[in-house]
Amino acid sequence: MTQTNRRWIYAQAPAGAIETGNFALNDAPVPQPAEGEALVRTTMLSIDPASRAWMAGATYRSKLEPGDVMAGWGLGEVVESRTPALKPGDLVSGEFGWQQFAAVPARHLTKHDPRHRPEHILSVYGITGLTAYFGLLDVGRPRPGETVLVSAAAGAVGNIAGQIARIAGCRVIGTAGGAEKCEWLKRDLGFDAALDYKAGGIYRQLKAAAPEGIDVYFDNTGGDVLSAALSRMNIGGRIACCGNVSQYDTATPAGGPAGVPGLLVTKRIRMEGFIVMDFYGRRRQAEETLARWVEEGRLNPAIDIVDGFDNMPAALTGMFAGKNRGKLLVRV
Amino acid sequence: MTQTNRRWIYAQAPAGAIETGNFALNDAPVPQPAEGEALVRTTMLSIDPASRAWMAGATYRSKLEPGDVMAGWGLGEVVESRTPALKPGDLVSGEFGWQQFAAVPARHLTKHDPRHRPEHILSVYGITGLTAYFGLLDVGRPRPGETVLVSAAAGAVGNIAGQIARIAGCRVIGTAGGAEKCEWLKRDLGFDAALDYKAGGIYRQLKAAAPEGIDVYFDNTGGDVLSAALSRMNIGGRIACCGNVSQYDTATPAGGPAGVPGLLVTKRIRMEGFIVMDFYGRRRQAEETLARWVEEGRLNPAIDIVDGFDNMPAALTGMFAGKNRGKLLVRV
Repeated sequence: MTQTNRRWIYAQAPAGAIETGNFALNDAPVPQPAEGEALVRTTMLSIDPASRAWMAGATYRSKLEPGDVMAGWGLGEVVESRTPALKPGDLVSGEFGWQQFAAVPARHLTKHDPRHRPEHILSVYGITGLTAYFGLLDVGRPRPGETVLVSAAAGAVGNIAGQIARIAGCRVIGTAGGAEKCEWLKRDLGFDAALDYKAGGIYRQLKAAAPEGIDVYFDNTGGDVLSAALSRMNIGGRIACCGNVSQYDTATPAGGPAGVPGLLVTKRIRMEGFIVMDFYGRRRQAEETLARWVEEGRLNPAIDIVDGFDNMPAALTGMFAGKNRGKLLVRV
Repeated sequence: MTQTNRRWIYAQAPAGAIETGNFALNDAPVPQPAEGEALVRTTMLSIDPASRAWMAGATYRSKLEPGDVMAGWGLGEVVESRTPALKPGDLVSGEFGWQQFAAVPARHLTKHDPRHRPEHILSVYGITGLTAYFGLLDVGRPRPGETVLVSAAAGAVGNIAGQIARIAGCRVIGTAGGAEKCEWLKRDLGFDAALDYKAGGIYRQLKAAAPEGIDVYFDNTGGDVLSAALSRMNIGGRIACCGNVSQYDTATPAGGPAGVPGLLVTKRIRMEGFIVMDFYGRRRQAEETLARWVEEGRLNPAIDIVDGFDNMPAALTGMFAGKNRGKLLVRV
């Protein structure tokens, strides 16, 4: 075992958009697992939009502070165990942070079937896929024949949410940045329509793509797409609030959508935020369903892999610049 | 029967705040009921904040246009019937408009028990009471021991919503304009706390009154109280969106609350608009429950009666100026 734990430190709070200079590499000794913990060697790390929100304040976790090891989820192999629940060689996921080794309490680790591909464990069978599954089905509650809109549809959660809506018998519209991503959504992932928000006129585009209105909106972005969606929601519509990525990577977030609360009242809209952990009681069932869809070829887990631990900050800034398609992962 | 039908016409769209000059008196012949209709003589009319929203655009009804008889709900007596469902002398409510006589299809009229007081039929047993009942219980879903916030709590719907929350075993906080109304909410209606939004610092006041946060917010106002409530909602909180009265009486509505959608996500808040008519399938049951609470002295229907049909516009502008306490009615 190497004696060094290479880590990315969250060195400096971003002034506006996040930059690679906000992070610093640092070597530390490999941690010693305490009683009840396992030492894990990280093999793959997940890059998530929520990273930026963690820097802005307390969310479902406490605020990240400069000097902390950068937070993040990953997949790894147990190299030493001080818990009867795990043994060396086990494949586990958890919040390891951006580092090559982490000592983690067993109760915060999830053990995985090594027959699954690592990139699937961290995407469609992990938090990303479960977020799409529970957010769309339990919060959005689409019915067959309804029209579903998904923002950031080329992103990790969005592409899966849209594909699940299609499996549920809905007409699916996605928004994404750029004509190429829009083509990809339609051609490779079966979206019925895709709108390029960077081309402007999102309200007009949405009206043309959904002349009969929107029944369910899976909102990853907030901002202009949320405002446009509110104006096009049908009576009894549902908005599953998953994220607010349009407002994360800025020092000056915009105000809320003007249609709130007026349009919620006149159109009886339910707008509901959720956190995937609240649904973990039904996690196994959801994972099995997602796995069956992947095996049957009905769900295409779109994954974008970057090689090399040193590229973590660049992968994150690239995501906010809209470079990735689907789930962004770094092979450590 | 008099041969003249005195009517208030919605003469001119308000430039900003509504004024009595936006209405004009007009005499017309008494209408003839068609087959299936009843001719009703109006005895009492309801003054509602939604009036202003009807002028701004289509809501759950089409937009009011200058030249229309002003819209509004009322109570009256059938004077001529061309429907087997009703006979002269029957006490009925419906959307009569601001006029002394109306010919209305029987299916749009609700017959009432003449033993009830007219002002109760148009308040606690009518749309007002049902709005508070279904909005609080079905949309807000308070549990005993939770903290409930009601905005415009001295208003028609708000005072009943707050009293129902108290009956449901909750701690109840209301917002109102002015120290006198706040005192009245606590002394006469049993609110645990009342916050004067005109005194400023609503966020600070709310934090002091609800140190453990808000579980259910019954929102009649939108605006600053909604923003403050969002910041103080507990995880899993619910916001029943009943109205947006802070933004009705203006030509320049403010933007939406900045906490949407970010706080909805991190705190898993459900924010849901509703229209009372959607719950009419359970109307009788709700009316019986409300009537029992009134008879038992547990629910105090706060009513403010203005005398004289000629005072209709002044009653409406007075309501937006915050003059009334509880349900505002005009005796025709």
